[in-house]
Amino acid sequence: MGIDKVNLDDMLNQFSEHWSPKTVGRVNDYEIKVVKVQGEFVWHQHDETDEVFLVLDGELTIDTPNGAVVLGPRETVTIPRGIQHRPRAERETSIVLIEPTGVANTGEAGGALTAVPESFV
Amino acid sequence: MGIDKVNLDDMLNQFSEHWSPKTVGRVNDYEIKVVKVQGEFVWHQHDETDEVFLVLDGELTIDTPNGAVVLGPRETVTIPRGIQHRPRAERETSIVLIEPTGVANTGEAGGALTAVPESFV
Repeated sequence: MGIDKVNLDDMLNQFSEHWSPKTVGRVNDYEIKVVKVQGEFVWHQHDETDEVFLVLDGELTIDTPNGAVVLGPRETVTIPRGIQHRPRAERETSIVLIEPTGVANTGEAGGALTAVPESFV
Repeated sequence: MGIDKVNLDDMLNQFSEHWSPKTVGRVNDYEIKVVKVQGEFVWHQHDETDEVFLVLDGELTIDTPNGAVVLGPRETVTIPRGIQHRPRAERETSIVLIEPTGVANTGEAGGALTAVPESFV
């Protein structure tokens, strides 16, 4: 069995759509995903899990009821379970997400931006 | 309660020692760590968990019984549980690790390079 590395930029070059996370790695029952975002996402929350955001390129703002967090490259934040949040980005921004396998991107909110899970690995 | 972001470079600037991971984020019962490495680590394995390596700066080689994986910046690999591996780096290299809380850096091997867990968050 080979152990294959993943180049995050190669993964990002394989798609252009926004708000549609792609799984690029796994650790036990957690997934590492990359996603491109631009514009405003929906307010939502994940009742069962925390969620890690790590910006690769661009600038991500995450609105919460207690204010906004603004992340540049190599900056990360954990949104705790149960906390309402709305990611947004003025320009196209690339992000790594870390969360358990099977988490819906729109959490409890659902709606048109709910992504179909897609894996590149 | 505030939700604080973490700048990975600020974290890396707070220490200089090698092979001593610092926790900089959490997602449920998993930890995001940064570590600086140079030279050869010990051969070891983690019987209970996979482990994700993501290079920030430099070049990391991970030897396994089936060959070596060489990672540059923005490249990642998952070493599956139970697989012997030895990280090494010719020059100083900065890495993100993702694994469950409480995993020893030297796995089952132990020894002098076993790090005392340290958290920056």
